[in-house]
Amino acid sequence: MRVVEVRERAVPIASQIANAYIDFGKMTASVVAIETDLVRDGSPLTGYGFNSNGRYAQSGLLRERFIPRLLEAEPEELLEAGGENFDPHRVWAVLMRNEKPGGHGERSVAVGALDMAVWDLVAKIAAKPLHRLLAERFGDGEPAATVSVYAAGGYYHPGKDEAGLVEELEGYLGLGYTTVKMKVGGVPLTDDLRRIEAALGILDGDGSRLAVDANGRFDLPTAVEFGAAIEPYGLRWYEEAGDPLDYQLNARLAESYPLCLATGENLFSMQDARNLVRFGGVRPGLDVLQMDPALSYGLTEYLRTLAAIEAEGFDRRSLVPHGGHQFGLAIAAGLGLGGNESYPGVFQPFGGFADGIAVKDGEVGLPEVPGIGFEAKADLFAVMEAV
Amino acid sequence: MRVVEVRERAVPIASQIANAYIDFGKMTASVVAIETDLVRDGSPLTGYGFNSNGRYAQSGLLRERFIPRLLEAEPEELLEAGGENFDPHRVWAVLMRNEKPGGHGERSVAVGALDMAVWDLVAKIAAKPLHRLLAERFGDGEPAATVSVYAAGGYYHPGKDEAGLVEELEGYLGLGYTTVKMKVGGVPLTDDLRRIEAALGILDGDGSRLAVDANGRFDLPTAVEFGAAIEPYGLRWYEEAGDPLDYQLNARLAESYPLCLATGENLFSMQDARNLVRFGGVRPGLDVLQMDPALSYGLTEYLRTLAAIEAEGFDRRSLVPHGGHQFGLAIAAGLGLGGNESYPGVFQPFGGFADGIAVKDGEVGLPEVPGIGFEAKADLFAVMEAV
Repeated sequence: MRVVEVRERAVPIASQIANAYIDFGKMTASVVAIETDLVRDGSPLTGYGFNSNGRYAQSGLLRERFIPRLLEAEPEELLEAGGENFDPHRVWAVLMRNEKPGGHGERSVAVGALDMAVWDLVAKIAAKPLHRLLAERFGDGEPAATVSVYAAGGYYHPGKDEAGLVEELEGYLGLGYTTVKMKVGGVPLTDDLRRIEAALGILDGDGSRLAVDANGRFDLPTAVEFGAAIEPYGLRWYEEAGDPLDYQLNARLAESYPLCLATGENLFSMQDARNLVRFGGVRPGLDVLQMDPALSYGLTEYLRTLAAIEAEGFDRRSLVPHGGHQFGLAIAAGLGLGGNESYPGVFQPFGGFADGIAVKDGEVGLPEVPGIGFEAKADLFAVMEAV
Repeated sequence: MRVVEVRERAVPIASQIANAYIDFGKMTASVVAIETDLVRDGSPLTGYGFNSNGRYAQSGLLRERFIPRLLEAEPEELLEAGGENFDPHRVWAVLMRNEKPGGHGERSVAVGALDMAVWDLVAKIAAKPLHRLLAERFGDGEPAATVSVYAAGGYYHPGKDEAGLVEELEGYLGLGYTTVKMKVGGVPLTDDLRRIEAALGILDGDGSRLAVDANGRFDLPTAVEFGAAIEPYGLRWYEEAGDPLDYQLNARLAESYPLCLATGENLFSMQDARNLVRFGGVRPGLDVLQMDPALSYGLTEYLRTLAAIEAEGFDRRSLVPHGGHQFGLAIAAGLGLGGNESYPGVFQPFGGFADGIAVKDGEVGLPEVPGIGFEAKADLFAVMEAV
């Protein structure tokens, strides 16, 4: 059993949306395919992966370093004992050969895309859905039948007013979501408060159904001021108030804001996530951790992150991965995490879940197909097959 | 005044050396050239930069994102008020457009190479050596005439014994260095202690002339054990004992090891360096901080790092940049830092300083040529001119 070929293509996931920090008009993603010498249904068995949104395609790093290392490895270096399947931990070690510690950005995205494809392969070889394989290996044996998902949207558009925001969020409710998230921090506080109140107007005034996301834009005084202003609404969470690496800011904000804070989508390694829980004032049982396995060296590193976070006293239900992709969904179901993000309608075709499985009461099921489930999402699989 | 063309080439800096973590047999570096429409001596005025050792060439990221952003900018977006020169801070902001916060690796190297070329240009347009320009803008007006440098070596080679180590280190002393650094952590403790004692044998037994570098290999118990074993030698410093992002390890080690600890070469942003001094138990006036401006978004970010570290109560003489390149040397002289690394004989032609300026009593001078001084180092400038 060996890897025959590894292909990569950068594709646009341009969206006419903006958060408080960047616009997504030039966003790209790498799609990777790892083809083996195994044959299923007359075709070479192939694992697929991609990089999650918010970071760019990694064509250069993949071609310069990571794909060559995978192809130069001896076939047996990549296999588990007995040679029945690939061993993602051994593959990961091959990918990270001759890489120094520290500096967790970009390469974490490149490796994450390949690692996703490896786990897709491993589950396909085992002829199981990934969420089932993960529950057996790392969970309590049985995956969750459904995963709690929330609709992330509420982006700023030029000319979009409260009516536009309400219309967008009503669309998510119509799709079966019960909790929604909106961007804040891109306009003055009073304007954001008006937007929040408009959103609450279609959520029965129930703040626990609305999260807000500042995308790391605030300094400490602004973050504290914003927190004080939104505290009466009792929101589901207040996300990424300050720079993702400013643990001190997060810790000080946690002293003044008694409700749920969420962060972690821009931390790309076990070490960075561990620093957040060690130094960021994160409160077990209250706050939410959003590391995205696809952006942070894949599931293989995410398992280390999970272990590190549990060792610091956190329950894995504190973890709700960023990204809104099937990989995060399978991991959430298999490992018993607290939920998964969802971006209805944007970052297509990478965002969203299997065709024909609707969100219902804020929960979504998973397809019972081997691998991550890409073959059960036609628009995405069409892009993957073309790579 | 405008940028006409930006060129990049990846070149090997392969060395037959290994530290405790990686071998350098496949190491590469990006060389960049920013050509303007200004003319000096009949040629287009051009700024040069490269990435420092330990991280790889960044051809992909430079071509995919950073060079296009520079070329797409309006010429005036890159200039200081009055238009007399480029403004590195404005250029930096253009390079980092549509980049999310967090994830400081790889792109920090790509941006660092371009930022080096921008500062080379700025000093050339001002017709001053960079160290002089920096002293005027950010220092006390007059750069240091010489900078304290130490010879970093003592790598492991297959078959290299204590005699080989001593021969190597004697070579550095013969070149005018008084302080040397050697790798540790790649062999059992007793072997490393024998190597250290051999080195001390040619340093008059003076531990203050010898530093050791574990390249992030140790866990906490091993780091503490190693520290206890070397404490009697009174070494200059004990470098990067554990993972560069394990601030807790560094803090606990600092509780048990009373002498100088050094770290920081694998932290690539102001935020990461600030976390080190906030949470890593770093002791002002004792420990050494080694962030490499070339690997960490350039001098423009390094100025922010410097300000953040000074705000946390550190003196800038605590800073001794990693990398052994002319950029670090000019920054150390101009800003009044505590010294600069040097790698005699390896990472050529990027390592090392100007031709004809010898190290004397552990100090080295700088050439009085406009820019960073690349034109005064023939082997390096030959590579740059070819780009």
